[in-house]
Amino acid sequence: MPFERNGGTSVNFGIIGYGYWGPNIVRNLASLEDSHVIAIADVDPDSRLRAQKAYPNIKVTPYAVDIISSTKIDAVAIISPAATHYELAKAALNNGKHVFVEKPFTSTAAQGEELIELARQRNLRIMVDHTFLFTGAVRKITELVQEGILGNLYYYDSIRVNLGNFQHDVNVLWDLAPHDLSIIDHVIKATPEAVVATGERHLNHHEDVAFMTVYFSEKVIAHINVNWLSPVKVRTTLIGGERRMLVWNDLEADEKVKIYDKGAEATTKEGYYKLFVNYRSGNMWAPRLEQIEALRHELCYFVECITNGKDPINDGCAGLRVVKMLEAATRSLGKRGSLVYL
Amino acid sequence: MPFERNGGTSVNFGIIGYGYWGPNIVRNLASLEDSHVIAIADVDPDSRLRAQKAYPNIKVTPYAVDIISSTKIDAVAIISPAATHYELAKAALNNGKHVFVEKPFTSTAAQGEELIELARQRNLRIMVDHTFLFTGAVRKITELVQEGILGNLYYYDSIRVNLGNFQHDVNVLWDLAPHDLSIIDHVIKATPEAVVATGERHLNHHEDVAFMTVYFSEKVIAHINVNWLSPVKVRTTLIGGERRMLVWNDLEADEKVKIYDKGAEATTKEGYYKLFVNYRSGNMWAPRLEQIEALRHELCYFVECITNGKDPINDGCAGLRVVKMLEAATRSLGKRGSLVYL
Amino acid sequence: MPFERNGGTSVNFGIIGYGYWGPNIVRNLASLEDSHVIAIADVDPDSRLRAQKAYPNIKVTPYAVDIISSTKIDAVAIISPAATHYELAKAALNNGKHVFVEKPFTSTAAQGEELIELARQRNLRIMVDHTFLFTGAVRKITELVQEGILGNLYYYDSIRVNLGNFQHDVNVLWDLAPHDLSIIDHVIKATPEAVVATGERHLNHHEDVAFMTVYFSEKVIAHINVNWLSPVKVRTTLIGGERRMLVWNDLEADEKVKIYDKGAEATTKEGYYKLFVNYRSGNMWAPRLEQIEALRHELCYFVECITNGKDPINDGCAGLRVVKMLEAATRSLGKRGSLVYL
Amino acid sequence: MPFERNGGTSVNFGIIGYGYWGPNIVRNLASLEDSHVIAIADVDPDSRLRAQKAYPNIKVTPYAVDIISSTKIDAVAIISPAATHYELAKAALNNGKHVFVEKPFTSTAAQGEELIELARQRNLRIMVDHTFLFTGAVRKITELVQEGILGNLYYYDSIRVNLGNFQHDVNVLWDLAPHDLSIIDHVIKATPEAVVATGERHLNHHEDVAFMTVYFSEKVIAHINVNWLSPVKVRTTLIGGERRMLVWNDLEADEKVKIYDKGAEATTKEGYYKLFVNYRSGNMWAPRLEQIEALRHELCYFVECITNGKDPINDGCAGLRVVKMLEAATRSLGKRGSLVYL
Repeated sequence: MPFERNGGTSVNFGIIGYGYWGPNIVRNLASLEDSHVIAIADVDPDSRLRAQKAYPNIKVTPYAVDIISSTKIDAVAIISPAATHYELAKAALNNGKHVFVEKPFTSTAAQGEELIELARQRNLRIMVDHTFLFTGAVRKITELVQEGILGNLYYYDSIRVNLGNFQHDVNVLWDLAPHDLSIIDHVIKATPEAVVATGERHLNHHEDVAFMTVYFSEKVIAHINVNWLSPVKVRTTLIGGERRMLVWNDLEADEKVKIYDKGAEATTKEGYYKLFVNYRSGNMWAPRLEQIEALRHELCYFVECITNGKDPINDGCAGLRVVKMLEAATRSLGKRGSLVYL
Repeated sequence: MPFERNGGTSVNFGIIGYGYWGPNIVRNLASLEDSHVIAIADVDPDSRLRAQKAYPNIKVTPYAVDIISSTKIDAVAIISPAATHYELAKAALNNGKHVFVEKPFTSTAAQGEELIELARQRNLRIMVDHTFLFTGAVRKITELVQEGILGNLYYYDSIRVNLGNFQHDVNVLWDLAPHDLSIIDHVIKATPEAVVATGERHLNHHEDVAFMTVYFSEKVIAHINVNWLSPVKVRTTLIGGERRMLVWNDLEADEKVKIYDKGAEATTKEGYYKLFVNYRSGNMWAPRLEQIEALRHELCYFVECITNGKDPINDGCAGLRVVKMLEAATRSLGKRGSLVYL
Repeated sequence: MPFERNGGTSVNFGIIGYGYWGPNIVRNLASLEDSHVIAIADVDPDSRLRAQKAYPNIKVTPYAVDIISSTKIDAVAIISPAATHYELAKAALNNGKHVFVEKPFTSTAAQGEELIELARQRNLRIMVDHTFLFTGAVRKITELVQEGILGNLYYYDSIRVNLGNFQHDVNVLWDLAPHDLSIIDHVIKATPEAVVATGERHLNHHEDVAFMTVYFSEKVIAHINVNWLSPVKVRTTLIGGERRMLVWNDLEADEKVKIYDKGAEATTKEGYYKLFVNYRSGNMWAPRLEQIEALRHELCYFVECITNGKDPINDGCAGLRVVKMLEAATRSLGKRGSLVYL
Repeated sequence: MPFERNGGTSVNFGIIGYGYWGPNIVRNLASLEDSHVIAIADVDPDSRLRAQKAYPNIKVTPYAVDIISSTKIDAVAIISPAATHYELAKAALNNGKHVFVEKPFTSTAAQGEELIELARQRNLRIMVDHTFLFTGAVRKITELVQEGILGNLYYYDSIRVNLGNFQHDVNVLWDLAPHDLSIIDHVIKATPEAVVATGERHLNHHEDVAFMTVYFSEKVIAHINVNWLSPVKVRTTLIGGERRMLVWNDLEADEKVKIYDKGAEATTKEGYYKLFVNYRSGNMWAPRLEQIEALRHELCYFVECITNGKDPINDGCAGLRVVKMLEAATRSLGKRGSLVYL
């Protein structure tokens, strides 16, 4: 029966937001061994109807406060628009709930810092939904970078374009770039130093096409191309390293990640002042990737973090680092592309 | 026999530079009906050997001045490094020769303006080798834009990456972006207003990875991604318009240009303040493209321009417009990405 | 409450078989407006558990006879192994139920003929699950052929290969070729005349790699390549016609069907005995396809056929024609590839 | 000067046939260190004109007999229609010339046997132009099979289709299948036992679409799909083995050969009569392939074989084995697909 506090190590969840992504959160939390979904809140009557039909045994309510104030709930998953994250997360933390929050973490860095401090004081966990970190592809890429297979990184270059879905509250950078920024934050160990963003708005007052460069220490450069107005869907990332390079095409059914034994090195020849560039060209290989659903992996890990009292890799601090880069990009975009230091 | 002045309308060419691209120029000029190649100059003995073996009946010389001063030569094709274009073209024009010059036209806008003025005074033709304008793909794209098939343009987004060939005298923007800028200059009728460029150098003191945004009037935005350190070769351009969008993949054997009957429009519904975005999604089609070699087409047209005394579409002014955007990009890159007005 | 006979035009279904494909049948029938699922039978306890968990309100039983003998059930969907189709369908028809049966219809043509006669006598409907006929791709292809867009057909050439799933009761032809044969039967209006099949068995006593040619009247030829041992999944069909040709790649997310304005015609030139072949090469286009789930479409249509007392396009006769080609293929395969007339 | 016998180890060639493929033969033989082209014969005046223009210093003649009877010529390359191979090769061998002959070797097996015997008696070399054996792809595939990387072979399945070029003297099997058969003959060590071929003629009296199965010992099966009426060009081969499988796509610029660590094995579990099939699924890799032009490699090897008096791997016997399979296919095709033993 719902609304009974679980005696064991199981974590009881309340969900705020049952729009596009919320159902995936509920489906996974409902089927994990150590978690239960106790209640779902959504302001939209149609969403509540869908939720109730799919889960006749879960309480469905229009009021987020029902979730936040429930004594039977241990953790709140906030899957609502970005602008609402801060208020909802703050209320949840103040009521002693752990928080799982959709990306981007908050609308401003200041909000993020406040939530992190609040969670620290109350010894609660925050997890920001950087789902991609839990995909087989990003786990493999992280491993390849950490083990030095790629050598020193040169660049990270991502294209993430498609037709729609237009957001009405944020521009295309805040909508799509958090995916890339969370991966970049996770994979690149150099320090992000400055951001440049350009873009244009065509259909309303938010940019629908945008380009973002992040300068890192050690000559690492990242670039993100996001676009709501592309006739084709592209999800391709190039990562160049001194020893090897890789292509990650997330739309391929198999062989999403291909590693090329290719590279270029600068050398000097004896007696010459001039630099020479040597190319290497060898085999390509596509490692087998884990097939488990990333979101399931992530939520399972969140339950584990709550149970063990440890902070996840995608905690509030990770979410904050992404928000800081987005804030800098917004400032740069406002000046049509000036350099903004982080 | 060589070095005899042609009585008819035939144009006699001298070629300066027989490295990577020069042989293609010579092969085409030698086989056109109304042009002859009289002499080839190259400072490199190996290049001269190759030239002489392939064309036993053409004079081969180490000295560009032999070409420039020859009374039997009507037009000079300058296929040498960018830094030499200005001096060679100036000398050729001063000696009354028409000039075909490799891209980029010159190293500075000031040089370009001087050459244009010189040609004007002497009623000589300048053609800058913007070969892509003569491909079946760009001709079809131009036609689609001009006839309004795409509707008002939203953006032009090009990726031009591969492993090598590192240039030692210019960065990757000056090497690869002229292709895109010449097409952008030709296809987009809005006015370029400002440029932002970012990038990084890894192997020597020139950027090997770079990204460039060009802001145009009427909310048109162009973006160019160039990279000498990519494990895979990509030559893909997305062009978004209000009515339709297209993808040009220059590496496809057939179907290089695909037009999507897709788009998005902003509308307001009665009684709502909020903007709505409507999507359209229909057929795709790939038009049959002309198969003629672009360079042959271009050189044939140059001979015709010389004969008829008319300026080509890719004249010095077109070359200058591209150089101005490259200059602005260089200034922006020097500040790691500030906005530079044109 | 289950097991109440519906007063209106709604059709009550019983499902036999809840393995791999059965859940899709149940999901669709349960959500259609004019159908209800009353009971599910499966001999496997795990399958029954899955069914009961997903549909707490539907009766689940190990006994097919519970379905067949139920007075509350109007129609039986038989989603069990091919070898059981005949007995189950016969019992269902004898009990006055309409029958939806998985492909292949039966194991022999004689069985199929008996079922068709039985259904005719009792005025019941049989539908064989030739799902592909209801996809947007096949509907478009059928339209293109019927409207003469392709001109007279030359050939139909399908590749349907992947790794696994090995069947233990039939060979790869009986497993995969029914898809192609049902489409061929639907699309090609010429008469199938003879069959040749070759193949080899590597892992057990059923062929895992096989190739099948069907000769039709009017010089139309069909070829099917099926393989359980391919490292890559391929679902590609070429259809050549006198006027145009098409490629159907069922694994593409968009643009599954591409039509090429290409062709070849034989001509004779005046004064020559020799034949000349003229090629045409023009545009390609990819029409927008309907997006509705094929199975839903098919089941909705079955309910409509039952209600209106009309035979579906994929009735027992269509199923029988496919079985006849499979029987002929089996005979041919037994002789390692002799010609078997239909 | 032409027609002088070379003192050293250099081989003097005469070429018969300067149509589509002949120029490639001449270009390579003319640039190899140890070979010279002395004369070119072609019955077509246009071809002679092209030859003379490209090679002003080579004798060009309409008469093959000029080549065959020349005392200055050591070896004859026969690049003429298949029907002429036997007579020309016989005359050349009778005049003491080594013979390089286009595929297919001869029109009948009997002709092939006669030529082989003739060459044996006179200690002359025959090479049949099975160019694909010298490509980086086939060399790598051969190595993978020989080293047991793929394990025991299951099947070889090739698709070689495109629009045109219609041949007027042979059907599509004799035109395109020799490529595959020569590779199959080289790569598969099991013994070919029987052939089945089906096909249809649409435009004239030769089959333009055909399918061919070759049964080998040890349960190896090969299949070839050739088609002159395909809207798209496909050159893809699947090779399945017990341990690994590969895909060779000859139209890919890079990564033509991909090896999949995938497979299936039959096992029996203790206490079960039933067979179980186990699947493996692991990494994929694309080995770097040699980039040298295959034809250059082949001709260089022929010169070496002549000089050293050794028979090439693609000697008359290899050519004969291919012709025997083609002959069997023709007989099978004549009966619309009966099994023909080799």
